[in-house]
Amino acid sequence: MIPGPIDPPARLLMGPGPIAAYPSVLEALGAPLVGQYDPFMTATMNETQELYRAVWATANEATMLVDGTSRAGIEAAMVSLIRPGDRVLVPVFGRFGHLLAEIAERAMAEVHTIEVPWGQVFPVSVIEEAIVRVKPTLLALVQGDTSTTMLQPLDEVGAICAAHGVLFYSDTTASLGGNAFEADAWGLDAATAGLQKCLGGPPGSAPITLSERAVEVIRSRGRVEAGIREEGDPEATDFVRSNYFDLGMIMDYWGPRRLNHHTEATSMLYAARECARVILLEGRDAVIERHRMAGEAMLAGVRALGFVTFGDLSHKMTNVVAVEIPDGVPGDEARGAMLTDFGIEIGTSFGPLHGRVWRIGTMGYNARQDAVTTTLAALEEVLARYGVSVPAGGGVDAALDVYRA
Amino acid sequence: MIPGPIDPPARLLMGPGPIAAYPSVLEALGAPLVGQYDPFMTATMNETQELYRAVWATANEATMLVDGTSRAGIEAAMVSLIRPGDRVLVPVFGRFGHLLAEIAERAMAEVHTIEVPWGQVFPVSVIEEAIVRVKPTLLALVQGDTSTTMLQPLDEVGAICAAHGVLFYSDTTASLGGNAFEADAWGLDAATAGLQKCLGGPPGSAPITLSERAVEVIRSRGRVEAGIREEGDPEATDFVRSNYFDLGMIMDYWGPRRLNHHTEATSMLYAARECARVILLEGRDAVIERHRMAGEAMLAGVRALGFVTFGDLSHKMTNVVAVEIPDGVPGDEARGAMLTDFGIEIGTSFGPLHGRVWRIGTMGYNARQDAVTTTLAALEEVLARYGVSVPAGGGVDAALDVYRA
Repeated sequence: MIPGPIDPPARLLMGPGPIAAYPSVLEALGAPLVGQYDPFMTATMNETQELYRAVWATANEATMLVDGTSRAGIEAAMVSLIRPGDRVLVPVFGRFGHLLAEIAERAMAEVHTIEVPWGQVFPVSVIEEAIVRVKPTLLALVQGDTSTTMLQPLDEVGAICAAHGVLFYSDTTASLGGNAFEADAWGLDAATAGLQKCLGGPPGSAPITLSERAVEVIRSRGRVEAGIREEGDPEATDFVRSNYFDLGMIMDYWGPRRLNHHTEATSMLYAARECARVILLEGRDAVIERHRMAGEAMLAGVRALGFVTFGDLSHKMTNVVAVEIPDGVPGDEARGAMLTDFGIEIGTSFGPLHGRVWRIGTMGYNARQDAVTTTLAALEEVLARYGVSVPAGGGVDAALDVYRA
Repeated sequence: MIPGPIDPPARLLMGPGPIAAYPSVLEALGAPLVGQYDPFMTATMNETQELYRAVWATANEATMLVDGTSRAGIEAAMVSLIRPGDRVLVPVFGRFGHLLAEIAERAMAEVHTIEVPWGQVFPVSVIEEAIVRVKPTLLALVQGDTSTTMLQPLDEVGAICAAHGVLFYSDTTASLGGNAFEADAWGLDAATAGLQKCLGGPPGSAPITLSERAVEVIRSRGRVEAGIREEGDPEATDFVRSNYFDLGMIMDYWGPRRLNHHTEATSMLYAARECARVILLEGRDAVIERHRMAGEAMLAGVRALGFVTFGDLSHKMTNVVAVEIPDGVPGDEARGAMLTDFGIEIGTSFGPLHGRVWRIGTMGYNARQDAVTTTLAALEEVLARYGVSVPAGGGVDAALDVYRA
């Protein structure tokens, strides 16, 4: 039995991501393909680099895409910057800190972690103290960890890293586009993201940007692969232990030499380009403000519905809120009712929060008033089914009040 | 200056790949997204696995996609199957053999290669002799190497590997869908591909299939990542040195446990599903026959135009032919004229063939009579400009004769 053409049900994706793509991103995905070295293709790659320089707020030449989901970008950054035995410091404030530590360990780093309870972020002094103690070559720090909804302040971290000769890498998958991020002003050496959160695209492409200092480290490990290597090409013995994630090769492919590496994922390139274009057309700050408004409206709404929120709200990302599942409400069944009866997806949780909180996102295309209000209206209906007493229309009114203010 | 929406020029892609996607694959790419654990998403993943079992001709449970381009699939297979220090045998008959050796080396294997001149394949006895001498744990063998257009016979290799206790992996990126391939009947332990050749999709998703024996090796190195690890989960110390390419984790994500790993690249999943669907609707053998016909027609056409072909034609892939650039014709300029004046792309070459041959592909959606004839007609025009004497219409007639026969 061969199934029919793909025909997804209508869904309003209000979880922690992936979320719905902007309509124009879906259109871009379906654009016809061109050859790998077609002048249109290389021009599109150059344009995409320039668009992402604006999104990242950087002048970094090495601003590209890694062809894979957001964790492909993370692994490319880590494996290219970490030499086996290097000390890496990972402050962990949620699941994705554990992921950075895990990837660093697989890259054969000597990994040091510090932790705060889920729902909190690190005071910058604690990070500095750990840097002084551990003396890492690399600090790997998540900006926004969807598992806890927390946003780690990064603006003072770069200067500390620079003062101690530490490379500063941040995973901005969950935060970029919906929260402030300034690669150059904040002194980032490397940052990676994914399209499926505030950038409003499908998972499968990982924007990355690298400072000159990061590029130097990567270049010192450079190697051109056998089969296309020519006289005089670099051939370091201290090479990166991955071919696919060797950022030196990826830079040679995106750069003027255009050395063949992977075959750039054309459709995902189109999508990534359109995500950045949508953001820059609306205005980078305006998009962050739209996320802030939607996040505030959702927060006001869930509070009016009587939900208890999770974590330190003064450090919450704009684009996701975690709420405790009310007593007596079966979490997965209620989420199922949201999906089945209303076509609305909200998120479950990982680790210590599993079964305890729901995560509700307002990001990318769905950082919109109507997405917020319909989600709140449906939530009210579902809570009522389980006997939770909620003021009728209270959630929606509170959200609209935020938009009216 | 923010550029306009993506608007690619019309191109007939007749190079060695990437090629044009089937129209229905472009449509599938633009389908709306759903959540990662939406019942529609997991059902679509299951359907896609089943479709690819038919494409691979396998009953392998572990039949999935790796989220990245074809070389992501190669690296996932290699890094998951190879323990540091393992002996790996790579017969090299073109650029992509060098790539397998390079990836194995980065995975810290002890790599042994054997080589034949470009344009030839290995007699199976030579592979067996090398297996006996090297005693590898893994044989890594390209099926079709687009750099030379050669198709390595694989049908007898699996039995030899099994007799010597060697895992048998093949990279079928360039060949799958347009040339016979029988994962189970030929005794493959692992095989990987990409969508952008005979499967008729965009680059960016890598189908993979693994035998029970390969799964055992991978499971023996299994580890569930920190952050989602529970009591009793495996935690091998001999773990794979990549998180993204750890096929044990990818199996746990595609399998019934649905353990969160990467976020599956939804749009590329839709595309991969549609590629397999198109092939199975037309019939796997019928699609291979269509590639064989188009390849024969193109071969007859280029010969009638006076081109000298490259390599052992008795072992040529159906879907690509290499022709020597005639004396007096500036190769890149003539290819440029094909693109600029006719919108048709043909391919250049790598390594020892660079500047010496063009590669002309007929694959996926473009394994069609009209694509063959228009390419030949344009080639005739361009050759004439450079003073090459060709019989008028000779290339097209010869191709049509193949279709008429």
